[in-house]
Amino acid sequence: MIVVMKAGSPETEVVRLTEEFETWGLTPEKIIGKHKVVIGLVGDTVALDPLQIQETSPWIEEVLRVEKPYKRVSREYRHGESSDVIVPTPNGSVKFGEHHPLVVVAGPCSVESEEMIVETAQRVKAAGATFLRGGAFKPRTSPYAFQGHGESALGLLAKAREATGLGIITELMDAADLDALAEVADVIQIGARNMQNFSLLKKVGAQDKPILLKRGMSATVEEWLMAAEYILAAGNPNVILCERGIRTFDSKYTRNTLDLATIPVLRALTHLPIMIDPSHGTGKSEYVPAMSMAAIAAGTDSLMIEVHPNPKKALSDGPQSLTPERFDQLMQEMSVIGKAVGRWIDESELAIA
Amino acid sequence: MIVVMKAGSPETEVVRLTEEFETWGLTPEKIIGKHKVVIGLVGDTVALDPLQIQETSPWIEEVLRVEKPYKRVSREYRHGESSDVIVPTPNGSVKFGEHHPLVVVAGPCSVESEEMIVETAQRVKAAGATFLRGGAFKPRTSPYAFQGHGESALGLLAKAREATGLGIITELMDAADLDALAEVADVIQIGARNMQNFSLLKKVGAQDKPILLKRGMSATVEEWLMAAEYILAAGNPNVILCERGIRTFDSKYTRNTLDLATIPVLRALTHLPIMIDPSHGTGKSEYVPAMSMAAIAAGTDSLMIEVHPNPKKALSDGPQSLTPERFDQLMQEMSVIGKAVGRWIDESELAIA
Amino acid sequence: MIVVMKAGSPETEVVRLTEEFETWGLTPEKIIGKHKVVIGLVGDTVALDPLQIQETSPWIEEVLRVEKPYKRVSREYRHGESSDVIVPTPNGSVKFGEHHPLVVVAGPCSVESEEMIVETAQRVKAAGATFLRGGAFKPRTSPYAFQGHGESALGLLAKAREATGLGIITELMDAADLDALAEVADVIQIGARNMQNFSLLKKVGAQDKPILLKRGMSATVEEWLMAAEYILAAGNPNVILCERGIRTFDSKYTRNTLDLATIPVLRALTHLPIMIDPSHGTGKSEYVPAMSMAAIAAGTDSLMIEVHPNPKKALSDGPQSLTPERFDQLMQEMSVIGKAVGRWIDESELAIA
Amino acid sequence: MIVVMKAGSPETEVVRLTEEFETWGLTPEKIIGKHKVVIGLVGDTVALDPLQIQETSPWIEEVLRVEKPYKRVSREYRHGESSDVIVPTPNGSVKFGEHHPLVVVAGPCSVESEEMIVETAQRVKAAGATFLRGGAFKPRTSPYAFQGHGESALGLLAKAREATGLGIITELMDAADLDALAEVADVIQIGARNMQNFSLLKKVGAQDKPILLKRGMSATVEEWLMAAEYILAAGNPNVILCERGIRTFDSKYTRNTLDLATIPVLRALTHLPIMIDPSHGTGKSEYVPAMSMAAIAAGTDSLMIEVHPNPKKALSDGPQSLTPERFDQLMQEMSVIGKAVGRWIDESELAIA
Repeated sequence: MIVVMKAGSPETEVVRLTEEFETWGLTPEKIIGKHKVVIGLVGDTVALDPLQIQETSPWIEEVLRVEKPYKRVSREYRHGESSDVIVPTPNGSVKFGEHHPLVVVAGPCSVESEEMIVETAQRVKAAGATFLRGGAFKPRTSPYAFQGHGESALGLLAKAREATGLGIITELMDAADLDALAEVADVIQIGARNMQNFSLLKKVGAQDKPILLKRGMSATVEEWLMAAEYILAAGNPNVILCERGIRTFDSKYTRNTLDLATIPVLRALTHLPIMIDPSHGTGKSEYVPAMSMAAIAAGTDSLMIEVHPNPKKALSDGPQSLTPERFDQLMQEMSVIGKAVGRWIDESELAIA
Repeated sequence: MIVVMKAGSPETEVVRLTEEFETWGLTPEKIIGKHKVVIGLVGDTVALDPLQIQETSPWIEEVLRVEKPYKRVSREYRHGESSDVIVPTPNGSVKFGEHHPLVVVAGPCSVESEEMIVETAQRVKAAGATFLRGGAFKPRTSPYAFQGHGESALGLLAKAREATGLGIITELMDAADLDALAEVADVIQIGARNMQNFSLLKKVGAQDKPILLKRGMSATVEEWLMAAEYILAAGNPNVILCERGIRTFDSKYTRNTLDLATIPVLRALTHLPIMIDPSHGTGKSEYVPAMSMAAIAAGTDSLMIEVHPNPKKALSDGPQSLTPERFDQLMQEMSVIGKAVGRWIDESELAIA
Repeated sequence: MIVVMKAGSPETEVVRLTEEFETWGLTPEKIIGKHKVVIGLVGDTVALDPLQIQETSPWIEEVLRVEKPYKRVSREYRHGESSDVIVPTPNGSVKFGEHHPLVVVAGPCSVESEEMIVETAQRVKAAGATFLRGGAFKPRTSPYAFQGHGESALGLLAKAREATGLGIITELMDAADLDALAEVADVIQIGARNMQNFSLLKKVGAQDKPILLKRGMSATVEEWLMAAEYILAAGNPNVILCERGIRTFDSKYTRNTLDLATIPVLRALTHLPIMIDPSHGTGKSEYVPAMSMAAIAAGTDSLMIEVHPNPKKALSDGPQSLTPERFDQLMQEMSVIGKAVGRWIDESELAIA
Repeated sequence: MIVVMKAGSPETEVVRLTEEFETWGLTPEKIIGKHKVVIGLVGDTVALDPLQIQETSPWIEEVLRVEKPYKRVSREYRHGESSDVIVPTPNGSVKFGEHHPLVVVAGPCSVESEEMIVETAQRVKAAGATFLRGGAFKPRTSPYAFQGHGESALGLLAKAREATGLGIITELMDAADLDALAEVADVIQIGARNMQNFSLLKKVGAQDKPILLKRGMSATVEEWLMAAEYILAAGNPNVILCERGIRTFDSKYTRNTLDLATIPVLRALTHLPIMIDPSHGTGKSEYVPAMSMAAIAAGTDSLMIEVHPNPKKALSDGPQSLTPERFDQLMQEMSVIGKAVGRWIDESELAIA
């Protein structure tokens, strides 16, 4: 931590501060510049809050953190190695991580009926997806919009899992639903709007199911990693980070701005696996193929793609859903890029699994 | 709702769509433009989702909503009249609303000790505040930062209330704490990070205490009003809207960008009372006075200002807290503007209350 | 300047860098932290570019500037004193600055005809404005939109000046027009879209007329001050900074987000006078009064307000223009706040001037 | 154009407006909704400004444009076909466009010396680039930073062109330099900061050299296309659109947010060729490879990549420049993706050219 003093700070104040920092167990080191004095704080500073340090004197101009504020999610914490999230499913273990083939998660925005979800599951499985997505509880901007079928939809997801052997990812909005949801879900999703719902993060950190943590729509990469740190700090090491588009000044042609540079950025900062959601990231099905291919080329570990048997009749997010036919075709297109970068599962392997 | 068809849409598709909209109970009206056909949907469209309509045909280019998506919070819902939120406190009813004097809420970011919170309450009351703010549960970016004293802090707030008669505003982060919190709080705060925690909104909508709904840091005005609509739709009409700064591209000199134009904008759109929080809005105590005065001049109904007996030692948000002395002075400064715009309580009245 | 080395940087590299910095005439001082080494650079660092320093070694993690990158515009440059921009007009000198009464600039977006501009000038003068705004050259998003009447409009501005004695502010878009424009304008405006047109900044810095520098729509405060620094560095000390709203994620109800906190922020950072433009800042005439009053309460030195004799027929920016009648009334409303904060010109003074 | 009337608008006003629109040569068509009246304007509306229409009545709530505001740049203008920009260079014609192999433009941020620019040109040519970039005039945030070597640098670019046969792209900042620059440049770059310098756009539209138009850092896609429309409207049809990262709320780990979804979005909206600049788009050389590959997978027509023989000593933008060695390797990596999507030039072809 670097404490920058204002120009003209009295020497007595610098001395007083230095002594105060020493009582905190830190070793302060002074640099006397041309105009300003700078104090470096050596010691265990992870738990320190720059805003708090700033308050120790009105003569402090700025406090700069030179260490990262997160620990367990950082790549250094694993000495530069990536971590895998390995999820048992009826069809075998699915491995999310830098050294594994791309994992494709597909399915509708929300679970609408048994027929619809089972059919979708069969179609996306046949195309090569290994995970099914589908919302039982839906966060909707309007209280008058379809809110998901709730617990009954969980039962339908269980049937789709049984019928296809696919793993299930579904969103948790309320801690009260955690037990029921964890019975069905192989991976629990925390949505963008709840990325800083710290109570919920602590609760999913205190249970065993892996967590898919979506980036908040205006969360910085650092805030996102800190949200993951909440989960790891509570005891759950299995977190996948999912970029789904951020909010910017332009939303005329795309719903969000898909920030694909997070792929190399996260790779450098954290050991956790990465997922990209081009469906929410663009909001329009016609842009999903180009962004899916781009994400693979940039090195993503997994993709989440919305597929609906009849997007025209979807109860939510229709415009960003692919038809099963378009998804079949996209899997072919993606395989070309996936093979080129060595991240596509061998089809013979698939057959065996 | 206006449906814009793509250039070159086949006439048969327009006819098919028109018939489909009729089956929804709507009256479609066609305008045949130079390049495009536009269909206006007449009827009850509040519950319709533009994204959903878009899915009814690949020939639809855009769906434009010309009605507001909110109802109960809209100014029209009360035929143009504003609503008041009237809160009983030991010192009498405090009235938030367009036709009442400015209400000042003051206090520390978090409740640190009995002495600290009671002393602060006495100081801000003496200066003219009628409500005390103070956090028991604190949303913090880092899991390693001080998280608030929780339930025990609620007891301390109760003591401060008893000692001074001030009303209490404190934040709810977890529905599990609602009962305990509602016993102490006169107004329950939903923080910026939970503005779209729809489960929580529904729960506070289903109880009686008034709600202070902070704007999410990247929430549009419309999303914010829709969040309030969740609370009203669930049965609780007493909501105060609090602007606390939004996230923009520049955060070097201020923590957030305080969007004061929300004052006239909200006044035009909704009947609900308005509060401004210049402490979070700027993040720096030295900018709080100018922004407090600006908010009054622009017509706010209330202000929330952080005051701490010793900002240097604050466990959170020190840099944006005023000392009690500076707050005393600010109340004097604000009274000048408040009187000029006819929104300052008469001191003789205060004495009687 | 603070150089943060990556964890695990070899000692030899730190030594090499230290020696390199010494050859630049700087005195490097090392702090050896728990995980990282930090090097403070003492000496004349204003001209150093942090990005450039970063390149001196792949082991550098981050370079942090602790000094301000601007010099002539900084408040320290005048030892904490504000500067005035004093502009001679036919009606006498108009003084922009912290210790002077509020200056009101009013007029239409663009000059449409002689009758229109002279009438507007007379109306705004009668209401108390001392400067007339009006565009001869208009920056328009579309090449097919009205682009201003150009040179002929300059002649009409000259007539309005003659008829009323008001000072003239008008925008320069092309250096080729500088001479013609400077003959008429008392203050030359550089618009938001040209804030980083560095060629133009250098040219207006090399002549004598005062400059009104509008903030770019996504310019940080620091970039804005650096743009002003270009003008001062080129020799022209007379710059007024005008906030006109920034671009954020929400533009549904207001065209831009008016960042009023720039008033106290600029006051602390620079000696230059401040202007607020609530017309562009909100884009809607009905929000202009509230934001004008807020700006005065927050301490602005001047206001720029669009007034059009017939907004319905305006060739540009009609929706944000006040009628002369509404402007008369606003001047009354503003005088109440202006007097409360001691920034309103005494009417007897006005009469004499 | 759709005109939405406020609820409760008097019938007489609707009639008056309808008549007014007729006098403009438009055919107004009325839809009477449950709460509101909507008027569709049929006819030639491209030159109409929604803001201007809004002014025709205080009873108008909103004016919605359903046509695109640009014409010549739209894909419809070429009946759905893409256009090519074909640039003669000493090594033969280079073709930018959807149906041609990827064009790689590489080189340093600024031209520093003859040796440096010629060496870089030779290296990037050997690696497979067909165009050299290099700045003679540099837009810099600080007036004290290196501003480019100006005209003398143009001479050095000419030498590099002669030595290697590569085409030259260099930035124009000031119309006064246009003639000198056009003698050397094969493509003239308009930088992000000048994207809405409409005077400059008109001038480069009135000459023959192709234009590379960078997206402004907070320009919407629509504003960007309108800027291109200025150039086409002035007579120059050869414009390449270059995405170089936009400004968002997060700039800690990347300098800008590279908006790769512009690739499919522009493809749908315009016939013009597309370029991606991952160097400015991320600001860090280590993220350039992943984003280059992503851009190819998403379908870009060309890439602009900064390469410097010694980034440590670069006078500008060092941190985002690749070494020639890293660029060699990247070209190999890119060829894998380029071939997979059928956009990589056959090496035998290269040899022949």
